[in-house]
Amino acid sequence: MVNRNDIASAAAKLGGHVRHTPVVRLNSADLGMKLPLTLKLELLQHSGSFKPRGAFNRLLSSPVPQAGVIAASGGNHGAAVAYAGRALGVQAEIFVPLTTPATKVARIKSYGARVVQTGASYAEALTASRERGSETGALEVHAYDHADVLAGQGTVGREFEQDAPDLTHVLVATGGGGLIGGIAAWYSGSVKVVSVEPEGCPTLHDALRAGRPIKVPVGGLAADSLGARQVGGLMFPIAQAYVAAAVLVPDRIIAEAQRLLWDRLRLIAEPGGATALAALLSGAFRPPEGAKVGVLVCGANTDPAKVVDA
Amino acid sequence: MVNRNDIASAAAKLGGHVRHTPVVRLNSADLGMKLPLTLKLELLQHSGSFKPRGAFNRLLSSPVPQAGVIAASGGNHGAAVAYAGRALGVQAEIFVPLTTPATKVARIKSYGARVVQTGASYAEALTASRERGSETGALEVHAYDHADVLAGQGTVGREFEQDAPDLTHVLVATGGGGLIGGIAAWYSGSVKVVSVEPEGCPTLHDALRAGRPIKVPVGGLAADSLGARQVGGLMFPIAQAYVAAAVLVPDRIIAEAQRLLWDRLRLIAEPGGATALAALLSGAFRPPEGAKVGVLVCGANTDPAKVVDA
Repeated sequence: MVNRNDIASAAAKLGGHVRHTPVVRLNSADLGMKLPLTLKLELLQHSGSFKPRGAFNRLLSSPVPQAGVIAASGGNHGAAVAYAGRALGVQAEIFVPLTTPATKVARIKSYGARVVQTGASYAEALTASRERGSETGALEVHAYDHADVLAGQGTVGREFEQDAPDLTHVLVATGGGGLIGGIAAWYSGSVKVVSVEPEGCPTLHDALRAGRPIKVPVGGLAADSLGARQVGGLMFPIAQAYVAAAVLVPDRIIAEAQRLLWDRLRLIAEPGGATALAALLSGAFRPPEGAKVGVLVCGANTDPAKVVDA
Repeated sequence: MVNRNDIASAAAKLGGHVRHTPVVRLNSADLGMKLPLTLKLELLQHSGSFKPRGAFNRLLSSPVPQAGVIAASGGNHGAAVAYAGRALGVQAEIFVPLTTPATKVARIKSYGARVVQTGASYAEALTASRERGSETGALEVHAYDHADVLAGQGTVGREFEQDAPDLTHVLVATGGGGLIGGIAAWYSGSVKVVSVEPEGCPTLHDALRAGRPIKVPVGGLAADSLGARQVGGLMFPIAQAYVAAAVLVPDRIIAEAQRLLWDRLRLIAEPGGATALAALLSGAFRPPEGAKVGVLVCGANTDPAKVVDA
């Protein structure tokens, strides 16, 4: 199981390749809730999401063949692998499903990667990428189910603890579970890590109920970033041990969280990036008296018009 | 002259009314320049700009009459006074010129203030607000030329020094000079504070050359936030003593700075908010070897479509 040592090693390896993203402390009144909040602004990370942490750690931990790297992604992981590939001088080929928004495809291409858009879902793009990878010999950079990727994403938790050591709860959006797996491994029970998923993508929620990763149908507003059909096998035991609760939020409240972040903080978050905050707005997570709650805002790759005009 | 003690007192008074905004450290490569930068994200402040610092300090330092407060503004100061008024239970009346963008008018109204849109410029709105104020007896909250306002804005410098004590240079956009006056008073020569203005609003640049505040014509992309025709009398001696240089940038490069902040950091800055950064892009300010440069990103009240689609 990925542990704090792995994450500390990842942080040392990442060095200047990723940004130490800032936190901002909000008053009780700021978002109209009755508790102070601490937001970690991971949406300011390179390529617009937390994903470069895992991507760089994977690329820096394995010899990369001449054929470069290959990845399947809903969009953000692909952008991160493309970004990391360019930074390290490694060729990247990215498979995304047909549902990936144009803004994300454009971003991946802007980093010089080859993009193949195929399949109706992330799972289908993954299958296609594996067929291609077996031909080319490129190194697979899995979007979440790899120890180096988990350890890389765990550095978010390490920074959050450094900058806000007083927190009692940390809310994190869950897709395939790489981010929350890494963060939960970092905290390993010292704060309550709460998973938040859209009602339309209940991947970890359902897996925890079933006692094992299971395939669930996915869809809705945040599916392009949180729409993995099944959580990773590596993160699941971490979640069983260290994720305190897994809650679901409706798309309507995710959109409200996006509008609130713009109105009160002038932040543009994509639906998946605003999902953790939505759990406080909807009441899906009700912090106990005296809780000091941290919220990870983890992605911004969207057209701002969709946030502002919604 | 406003000094560090005044600013420390202001910080104590402001307490939880304003956000301690975060800094983010960028690598040499991040913005395509050859130096590391530290950005202070003051655009995440309440009401979308640094202005609440001065507004709160003014309101908390004087008895407010029954008639409430009155202010003239290009938009951001008005939003801040309206925000502070609502927070403190004080009625606010805001005069803005006809050039103030609709997004800023809407924001002022959203805080419950009465808005009067009149005159072709900030100066004309100010005249109208003073006529009105002499009738109502409301407390004037000047946008920049008041000691409490200067001391309030100076708290930006105090936080910047706390969070980035290693800086050698700090770049600040100048309009009427309240912000840079407060910041220069805080640092009082311990770092080089550089003023950046659009070529179309050379208010401090021309004043420093003339040896006194003089009226200049103002216009262009950032005029709604940096379009004061003359710098404040209170800030001028501070600028003479502690502003190391005053440079000008073309509107084209301000727009480029806005696009860069969105592309590399997912930040939406208004033209005035991106003006300080533009001085590095245009070469108007060339940091010496070994400089550690801080850049204040001070406002975000714009329609994101203008940034993204520009």
